Amino acid sequence: MRQFILPSSYHGEATFAVEGKESQYLSKVLRLKVGQQLLGRDQGGGKYMLTLQEVTKNRCLLSCAKVDQQDEVTSTDTLPAYRGPYPNLTLLQCLCKGRKEEQIFRQATEIGVSSLALVSSRYCIPDLSEKKEHALTSRFDRLEAQVKEALQQSGSPLSTTMVPHILPLEEVPKWWNNRGLALFFHQSEREQPQPSLTKLLSDHPIERPIAVLVGPEGGFSDEECTFLEEAGFHAVLLKTNILRSETAGVYALSAIQVILTERETKPVHL
Amino acid sequence: MRQFILPSSYHGEATFAVEGKESQYLSKVLRLKVGQQLLGRDQGGGKYMLTLQEVTKNRCLLSCAKVDQQDEVTSTDTLPAYRGPYPNLTLLQCLCKGRKEEQIFRQATEIGVSSLALVSSRYCIPDLSEKKEHALTSRFDRLEAQVKEALQQSGSPLSTTMVPHILPLEEVPKWWNNRGLALFFHQSEREQPQPSLTKLLSDHPIERPIAVLVGPEGGFSDEECTFLEEAGFHAVLLKTNILRSETAGVYALSAIQVILTERETKPVHL
Repeated sequence: MRQFILPSSYHGEATFAVEGKESQYLSKVLRLKVGQQLLGRDQGGGKYMLTLQEVTKNRCLLSCAKVDQQDEVTSTDTLPAYRGPYPNLTLLQCLCKGRKEEQIFRQATEIGVSSLALVSSRYCIPDLSEKKEHALTSRFDRLEAQVKEALQQSGSPLSTTMVPHILPLEEVPKWWNNRGLALFFHQSEREQPQPSLTKLLSDHPIERPIAVLVGPEGGFSDEECTFLEEAGFHAVLLKTNILRSETAGVYALSAIQVILTERETKPVHL
Repeated sequence: MRQFILPSSYHGEATFAVEGKESQYLSKVLRLKVGQQLLGRDQGGGKYMLTLQEVTKNRCLLSCAKVDQQDEVTSTDTLPAYRGPYPNLTLLQCLCKGRKEEQIFRQATEIGVSSLALVSSRYCIPDLSEKKEHALTSRFDRLEAQVKEALQQSGSPLSTTMVPHILPLEEVPKWWNNRGLALFFHQSEREQPQPSLTKLLSDHPIERPIAVLVGPEGGFSDEECTFLEEAGFHAVLLKTNILRSETAGVYALSAIQVILTERETKPVHL
């Protein structure tokens, strides 16, 4: 079920008109018809039952009825979503440029990760040590906004959370605390033969947590790889080209989710 | 093997210094050491053997030796890539906003698709019918540049090609001409039970072509789905949230590539 985020100019009116891009989103993307309903949220998170009253070329008129937070809203939105089960995925993303981090967090939330954290490692290009406190706060605020928007747009039933500080790589295993399977993606072969993703997931119950650690553009150093392996993390070598950080995370999460969800539900035969 | 794109200010000199971001890319991301070599390309596609001569904080000095196009360049680049086999993937992407299309084409090329095309369908938001010829040309030029850059940065051994015009959805089956498995991704259940991706790929030889058709934000209409099914395209319902167009393509391509490449190579047991 989709949710529609009311613009900041909305202040509880009983009817409200949206125009331009937002009107097009309702009429052309969601294909909402007059009389159909949709869950709405105002900027403070308040919940509304929205009913489409009138559509013209560039404008949609909505009636907005406030509902209690705990009330179920039955939406006639024509795009139903998968309702689960979801794998329990934690993305541990090494620092990249700010815009890339936002894209990664947004896409990982869309796909349905349970939690997200930023990790600092040796070859990370952005060096945060000299960053002022407020720059870091605004960075996390921007990431938080991306997560929130993605949760709403994707209709995700999960409440994706974000670790509100940067984890140094050497603290990651202690932070993870053997909650489940821990994987890190590395572009080079390790000395020990590496199992494939399919093999690592072959007897993994869908609800058991998985940590997905993705390196920075420069990858992990040999010392970092050895440290992670000794802490029980499995190095996975993807059978693909050299991926940028912002592609590697989505790639790994997508493959894991498809392998686990397609196995979990009963196979449908042609 | 990575390739380094020489800046437009390079004109065949025997030594060349790069600074700032590009110097950091060589020293910190690729971690090239003095004496190590890397394949270079100038803006015209000319091939060079680059050897790192000197590194200072913000500057790398390279010696550049022109080599013939057909010569093999042995690079000591420390980030080796997977060399194949690759699935034979064609991404058929319905039109989105220009910036999103560029991101999709870049990421699909990184992952290693064989070809890419833009498709127009009923619920595409960008309406190109009134666009002037030159706007469309510059759109394809920008996409072409993204594909080229991604091929080089990802070290892809494939020569990803792009269809230089927009395919109307009704012409897609004829254009595809039953070259192999054809899939389209659709957010709603169809009347017929739908096989999973894993099932559809279960006896698919890795080299056999696969078309991956991804809808616009508004999805496909019922008529479009019926048309595609009658033309032999399989509707795939991904077991995930509602994905934006720019996530759906990468999601599908990643899952297909992992399923096929991990099956193809001998499993490594722990």
